Amino acid sequence: MANQILVFCLLALAITGSLARFSDIRKKYSDIQRNQQILKNLKDVVEDPASQFHHSAYRRLAYLVDTYGPRLWGSQSLELAIQDLANQIKEDGIDVRLEPVRNFTKWVRGQESLTLFEPRPFPQKLKMIGLGRSVGGNVTADAVVVTSFDDLQAKAHLVPGKIVIYAVPWVNYETTVAYRGSGAIEAAKLGAVAALVRSITPFSIESPHTGSMSYAANVTQIPAAAIAVEDAEMFLRMFERGQRIRLNLYMESWNVPNANSFNVVAELRGSVYPEKILVLGGHTDSWDVGSQTGANDDGGGFVTCYEALRLIAKSGLTPKRTIRFIAWSGEEYGGSLSGASQYANDHKDEMDNHIVAFESDLGSRTPVAWGFSGGQNGLNYFQDLVSTYFKPIYNITEVLDGEGEMVDSGYIGSYGVPMVRNIGQDTPSNDYYFTFHHSAGDSMSVMDPDQMDENVVGIASLFYLLADADVALPRD
Amino acid sequence: MANQILVFCLLALAITGSLARFSDIRKKYSDIQRNQQILKNLKDVVEDPASQFHHSAYRRLAYLVDTYGPRLWGSQSLELAIQDLANQIKEDGIDVRLEPVRNFTKWVRGQESLTLFEPRPFPQKLKMIGLGRSVGGNVTADAVVVTSFDDLQAKAHLVPGKIVIYAVPWVNYETTVAYRGSGAIEAAKLGAVAALVRSITPFSIESPHTGSMSYAANVTQIPAAAIAVEDAEMFLRMFERGQRIRLNLYMESWNVPNANSFNVVAELRGSVYPEKILVLGGHTDSWDVGSQTGANDDGGGFVTCYEALRLIAKSGLTPKRTIRFIAWSGEEYGGSLSGASQYANDHKDEMDNHIVAFESDLGSRTPVAWGFSGGQNGLNYFQDLVSTYFKPIYNITEVLDGEGEMVDSGYIGSYGVPMVRNIGQDTPSNDYYFTFHHSAGDSMSVMDPDQMDENVVGIASLFYLLADADVALPRD
Repeated sequence: MANQILVFCLLALAITGSLARFSDIRKKYSDIQRNQQILKNLKDVVEDPASQFHHSAYRRLAYLVDTYGPRLWGSQSLELAIQDLANQIKEDGIDVRLEPVRNFTKWVRGQESLTLFEPRPFPQKLKMIGLGRSVGGNVTADAVVVTSFDDLQAKAHLVPGKIVIYAVPWVNYETTVAYRGSGAIEAAKLGAVAALVRSITPFSIESPHTGSMSYAANVTQIPAAAIAVEDAEMFLRMFERGQRIRLNLYMESWNVPNANSFNVVAELRGSVYPEKILVLGGHTDSWDVGSQTGANDDGGGFVTCYEALRLIAKSGLTPKRTIRFIAWSGEEYGGSLSGASQYANDHKDEMDNHIVAFESDLGSRTPVAWGFSGGQNGLNYFQDLVSTYFKPIYNITEVLDGEGEMVDSGYIGSYGVPMVRNIGQDTPSNDYYFTFHHSAGDSMSVMDPDQMDENVVGIASLFYLLADADVALPRD
Repeated sequence: MANQILVFCLLALAITGSLARFSDIRKKYSDIQRNQQILKNLKDVVEDPASQFHHSAYRRLAYLVDTYGPRLWGSQSLELAIQDLANQIKEDGIDVRLEPVRNFTKWVRGQESLTLFEPRPFPQKLKMIGLGRSVGGNVTADAVVVTSFDDLQAKAHLVPGKIVIYAVPWVNYETTVAYRGSGAIEAAKLGAVAALVRSITPFSIESPHTGSMSYAANVTQIPAAAIAVEDAEMFLRMFERGQRIRLNLYMESWNVPNANSFNVVAELRGSVYPEKILVLGGHTDSWDVGSQTGANDDGGGFVTCYEALRLIAKSGLTPKRTIRFIAWSGEEYGGSLSGASQYANDHKDEMDNHIVAFESDLGSRTPVAWGFSGGQNGLNYFQDLVSTYFKPIYNITEVLDGEGEMVDSGYIGSYGVPMVRNIGQDTPSNDYYFTFHHSAGDSMSVMDPDQMDENVVGIASLFYLLADADVALPRD
């Protein structure tokens, strides 16, 4: 398959008259065997149980997660974890700085509960988790249960004064998350007093999943919470059976302005082109709904990226370009005020020199492919690199075109910088990842030390190659 | 295989001189083709989407679960569900009575919480569920984490004044549940002030599982609670890392004497030997830890058994012996005061006439085998029946010898009555069942309407055959 892609690329380039350029790109393979040996060494050292790099990503992550707990944006726990990470990097002897993320509004969760009064003979507390950014409220009302936005419209006459419950099916994250994001808006437009959304997950053990929601201008802001899949299905049965559903939703929450945080920025300066920058990272903040929330989203992401940087640095490699690790703050509900947005803004003058933005934020399972978003020449270059270097010793042979962008890397990508991400073993709709995502189950128990190592090796190998290539990954 | 067993049985019987008896047993097949047609009819009617029996078990169970919620022994919710079930049976035109279960001590859960103070920078509430029958308490202490009872002994010097955390591996229910049952006893013997037990489950989304625990004479009664798998693993990491673990366990609970409940007893009287009784059933009570707790344990069990009785009755079949459905009260922590114990005691004069005791209490997934506990002649008879009738049209061909006993049927079995249970599709350690068992996830979402139907058909077929056989299932 990789050979077929190579042949196809050669033909396509010849046809478009870009053959001269292609021969330039080939220069990056001036010393293929030497590079292959370097990659093998990186792999060997991580796989060696006696090495300090063996399971180091898992150990570093477990220490941070166990010690500091969930890291909601704006919380002191997050700031303590960020400071500790920066100190660890300093102790590793790697250049590190904290870049401020200022004046954002932090969201604070207070007491919250959902109580079912009817049809139960006695009030029943149900599991629930308020959605991020939701206003608080104290609403007692009957419920209308809908299975889609179309169904909501069909039942519009029932909605005024009611709590709308979205008992929607899991399709995939991108599809189903629309109910979490704008369910409150659509319900409020029809006069609902609150919105309850089936958790955006393929599987549940009565485990609610939070996440960010939004409001719209000129639409009443009503409280919105997630309920467990099981309870959404229960409400649908009750509604279809004709049972009255009477509920109280109580939610406290506060939006606190002028909060501050930091992006952690660490780098290995390029030996030939230090001004040329390859970014890799993940986000430090998490949701706040369990004992270890943020182990997988995105603790595993930022820690494996840092360990990849450290592996290159400690292996005595001196790649030509600068490799910059960033642990962004504020991905979960940061939007335009997030650390990633602020990084791109603060470093606008450097954006022409950014070669690639890599983000890991969909888990750290055994890597099977790379996602790439950029121009056609960049894609050709990247596919060529993957088939040349990863096929021989790794199981990462596939490049998914158009799949490189993630939330934080997207801010750099908006300047025309190619984006890459790692893709791990999962179902097509990432059922493994989303089973734990944004729930109390996002814990160290989801993480596998060997699989984290595989990610470290894969990312380090990729970054060494990209940073040391004779010709840089092209944007076009 | 079945033929081999038959040949083996023939040989064995010939050798032991029991051939005459065997030829008696064969009389039960005096009309094999007619019986096969009856079984096919039972199957067809349940599979017919237009039939009232199609998905009727699922619908009946969902109504009870959604309407009454969890059914802790001694709670009014349980009693309302029991009354409603009895009324439904009456409306179905089937003989039903309520048999009192008197003077037991009910256990009432109050407020409870677990808070982690160290090593976290801020107090962290952890998910927990107090174990059934545990005393209350309010304990703030450091923790000692152990991985087995042997490890507890090895760390005995650390235990006085501490909270013992059992971070034990999942082996299977029977093995691992020992820590839930007697963890508090073993910890208290060494001076511990509380015990926290990893939930007895193969898989978790930060989902604690409760269950009954016990105390021993002359050993201090300390509070005991279950924690999620993820947190047990976290505590083990902290302990091995040398971090101090400081916790508060707060539990309220009350033991309230002189509680009452009922067994629901419904029957189809035998047309020839009404005094001969075949019992089938499950238990109505459940734990109290989620919105629908008790859907699978054991709502599905007692409802499928009742639907099997109703299917036989409404099909106009008049088997020779009496089929008696019992919905026992108080299995979860009833012990010798449970409804099943009381039933056996109240009906001790009838015990000689009990032919079989069937209990469904390990889920209602697609049936694949029967468990049988009884004598060798009973086993031979049962295996012969299964291979004659179930192989042609059902996928239930296997009989697991010694696997017929369950908690409630065991009280009848103690009088020498053979016991049978249904075995559904699962892993060897029943990972599917135990993932939800005793947790908030034991909901209707675990239940599958088609698989419940398959159980109804299988159980109805078995009971029709056993009740109408020319020669009864022997005890010896």
